[in-house]
Amino acid sequence: MSDHGHDVPAAPQASALRARRLGIDTFAQPVIYVRADSPVCRAEGLAAQTQVEVTAGHHRIVATLHPVHADLLQADEAGLSEAAWKLLGPEAGAPLTVRHLPPIESLSAVRAKIYGHALAEAQWQAIIDDVVAGRYSGLHLAALVVACAAGRMELHETVGLTRAMVASGQRMTWPYPTVVDKHCVGGLPGNRTTPIVVSIVAACGGIVPKTSSRAITSPAGTADAMETLAPVDLGLAQMRAVVEREGACIVWGGAVGLSPADDVLIRVERVLDLDGEAQLVASVLSKKVAAGSNRVLIDIPVGPSAKVRSAQSAQRLAGTLVAAGQALGLQVHCVQTNGTQPVGRGIGPALEAHEVLAVLRNSPEAPPDLRERALSLAGPMLEMAGLVQPGLGQPAAQAALDDGRAWRKFAAICAAQGGMREPGRAPYREEVPSPRSGRLAEVDNRRLARLAKLTGAPLAKTSGLVLYPRIGDSVQRGEPILALHAESKSELRYALDYLDGQPPLQISGTLTAGDSPASGSGEET
Amino acid sequence: MSDHGHDVPAAPQASALRARRLGIDTFAQPVIYVRADSPVCRAEGLAAQTQVEVTAGHHRIVATLHPVHADLLQADEAGLSEAAWKLLGPEAGAPLTVRHLPPIESLSAVRAKIYGHALAEAQWQAIIDDVVAGRYSGLHLAALVVACAAGRMELHETVGLTRAMVASGQRMTWPYPTVVDKHCVGGLPGNRTTPIVVSIVAACGGIVPKTSSRAITSPAGTADAMETLAPVDLGLAQMRAVVEREGACIVWGGAVGLSPADDVLIRVERVLDLDGEAQLVASVLSKKVAAGSNRVLIDIPVGPSAKVRSAQSAQRLAGTLVAAGQALGLQVHCVQTNGTQPVGRGIGPALEAHEVLAVLRNSPEAPPDLRERALSLAGPMLEMAGLVQPGLGQPAAQAALDDGRAWRKFAAICAAQGGMREPGRAPYREEVPSPRSGRLAEVDNRRLARLAKLTGAPLAKTSGLVLYPRIGDSVQRGEPILALHAESKSELRYALDYLDGQPPLQISGTLTAGDSPASGSGEET
Repeated sequence: MSDHGHDVPAAPQASALRARRLGIDTFAQPVIYVRADSPVCRAEGLAAQTQVEVTAGHHRIVATLHPVHADLLQADEAGLSEAAWKLLGPEAGAPLTVRHLPPIESLSAVRAKIYGHALAEAQWQAIIDDVVAGRYSGLHLAALVVACAAGRMELHETVGLTRAMVASGQRMTWPYPTVVDKHCVGGLPGNRTTPIVVSIVAACGGIVPKTSSRAITSPAGTADAMETLAPVDLGLAQMRAVVEREGACIVWGGAVGLSPADDVLIRVERVLDLDGEAQLVASVLSKKVAAGSNRVLIDIPVGPSAKVRSAQSAQRLAGTLVAAGQALGLQVHCVQTNGTQPVGRGIGPALEAHEVLAVLRNSPEAPPDLRERALSLAGPMLEMAGLVQPGLGQPAAQAALDDGRAWRKFAAICAAQGGMREPGRAPYREEVPSPRSGRLAEVDNRRLARLAKLTGAPLAKTSGLVLYPRIGDSVQRGEPILALHAESKSELRYALDYLDGQPPLQISGTLTAGDSPASGSGEET
Repeated sequence: MSDHGHDVPAAPQASALRARRLGIDTFAQPVIYVRADSPVCRAEGLAAQTQVEVTAGHHRIVATLHPVHADLLQADEAGLSEAAWKLLGPEAGAPLTVRHLPPIESLSAVRAKIYGHALAEAQWQAIIDDVVAGRYSGLHLAALVVACAAGRMELHETVGLTRAMVASGQRMTWPYPTVVDKHCVGGLPGNRTTPIVVSIVAACGGIVPKTSSRAITSPAGTADAMETLAPVDLGLAQMRAVVEREGACIVWGGAVGLSPADDVLIRVERVLDLDGEAQLVASVLSKKVAAGSNRVLIDIPVGPSAKVRSAQSAQRLAGTLVAAGQALGLQVHCVQTNGTQPVGRGIGPALEAHEVLAVLRNSPEAPPDLRERALSLAGPMLEMAGLVQPGLGQPAAQAALDDGRAWRKFAAICAAQGGMREPGRAPYREEVPSPRSGRLAEVDNRRLARLAKLTGAPLAKTSGLVLYPRIGDSVQRGEPILALHAESKSELRYALDYLDGQPPLQISGTLTAGDSPASGSGEET
């Protein structure tokens, strides 16, 4: 019965193909295109959407196979998507080999997690190693993210996950005893304090190796906004050079290779619009540990439509952050802030960057609430860093901002990162009038964020919105209450359509002439 | 500030492109390829991996966008993957429009489910409608499947999900008062009783509109095995004609459009190797309700390495199946069967089909356990169908098998489905000898299934394995205990490699000359 036996070759040499860059952008997912009738597909028994291992010289990646039935490729060619081409880095025409992916053993741990079992640190490490190696398909990543969401992680698991994420990437060390950092858990549109706070603390002598993420579910992350002011895609050596020269940096975390698993998982969370507590804690703390910080201030905005909706939830999250930080050798200090409405007026990368500049330059157009919020965070950071006596942080921060030291430090950081630039303005804009007179009673931050995303933010840098009144301000019927900014007409239209059905602002109060009594209270815009 | 206002056009006409079939096989995921510098990408602000709505004439699909940077396409061309081309069915060069997908509102229900909230029937309907319309990306589908897994569904949710799945597709009605069906919850390799049971019941006058699925996590589903004997890809009208002529059919459920959401979700479960109870109940019962059955026998194999591991779990599952069935107007009867080892010897589509034929033909090579198992299920079905008095089902079933009525009925069903054919044999085979003498003490069904999958089953129809001894049988050292069958050398090698590290058979017992005392008991193969 044994037609063929153990004489099966150890490495199927028949699978050598010539590499060709097809120029197809599949985002983060590497794809390899191979003729369905090629010897490789037939000998290996490879089918569509199989995950395969692709080797070129000493580089090896995992890619999804898309068989090609037409004459798009020669029989001995392998097309690579942009992501696959960049990861593998072959010469055009270089020989590639394609083979089955060995079974991914860590997926049994993911299944155990789905079934509610707590995982040990070694299991987290196996999962994260496979994630970073690109062995998980999108479906596996989504399953992992959901299995860890919604309170399903014990503290020791969150710590194990965080350690695994730190171990999966680069790790920085510094010759300074105290290295500080800050983070905002998000959920509050426009809350762009980081460039201001980092500049103040560095201006006072603090060391702040700040990496920021791009937006997960929001219309702009700090890295998205900062990118409109200076390059943020710095490598690890460049980041180190900036911090050694200026005491601080404000770069995108994705390019420096700190906790690279986080960057993969964040993309999945973004698509699923999910941002669970354990992932959040692991994401934040792994970046800080990997960046070599030892004291971290965490801003938790609280409001009915912020990410954290009650003081109780904020306390619970703070408890997890502090406890996990302790297990990881980080001193974590959490601050609850007002999350009932956006900070500043603009929402969107460039719109927020303009306001950061205004605050740093002490311009009269600077939104006072953004300035106040930044000072309220910079104060405790100066104290945590041991740069001022307890209680003297806030006045010291204000002095550094008022006398221009913070602005000069920011400009120096931008110069060190590659040069400061002016954020742009969107070509399409539309002001939205108030449908009635009254007072702004409530802001739905989620709808406002959704509205800003529909204008194209954060991918469209200058898109977003500007909100004119604050809660409690009176508005007149017909007076503009917000403006939409977009880089394409169709996106402007999507945002306007959404606004009609899902008003983010609630205006209530006294009737004025022309209003019908029936619409007397609680009308929304 | 309003450069452009509500005069934005209602339907961006600029987005018309010419359709081109690119011949790329992306499996079930429709993909559209558009030049990154085309007016459509620029005007709509479309980026890689965005889900877009593609319209051609009166057809509209959801596809994933892969922008193309090279000259693979003309600026006014839109390439379509095979899945997109088949769903949309345009003429080559026909005009296509591409636009943003409207927000998918049902995803908020998926998020609520992830956070542990029970969903109402209307929410399930909204989710399932969007799934069937192809609006969910793979990540969303994976999130949905995981959110419903591991006991997170209340009974009313399972019923709501089942009703939504029935409503999402075709629904059959019959002019017969009693329509019976059977289902095995799986987990037991080789348990291919369906073709035998259906033939017996139909031979005795029962009406059995049987649809089967392809494998989810196993090396062969009934549809995979049946396909090696006769066509199974029948449409709804063809299926009806077969049942009206022969009283029964054995077709693949995917082609008839009954509960099409199930087919989408099953693919995701297959990749994730997940098969949760609620999904299982909704999957099974939605197919039965949609097929117009009103009495269903469900086979639940129980064993330490079967899908259901204990009598308790089986009772719990049976309770859910009966209760959900009641809410859906189905009389459900569950039978616990022995799930400690495979039924029959062959595992893999064609290998199992050969044994089905042997039992139906009363051949001396027929595995006795497969015959017994089929009779033990056909008996109660005859009683449920009211074709025999209670207690007389099993002898009636045996008579129909022994006197050739079941075989003639099976041949007639195959003929009605398009013609019977002989299952093939794999070109590469390898027998595996026992490393020692003793008795077969235990079979790990999961490892055995994994081993069969590594040979290429179920996609490679003739691949799989044949297990020679049953539990309790004595084996001699060097005697073959199983044979691997494969359609490619490399797959044979993967299976052999796996066998070295993960032995599925445990052989224990008396020492014989040549064995070392140290390996005296519990040695595995």
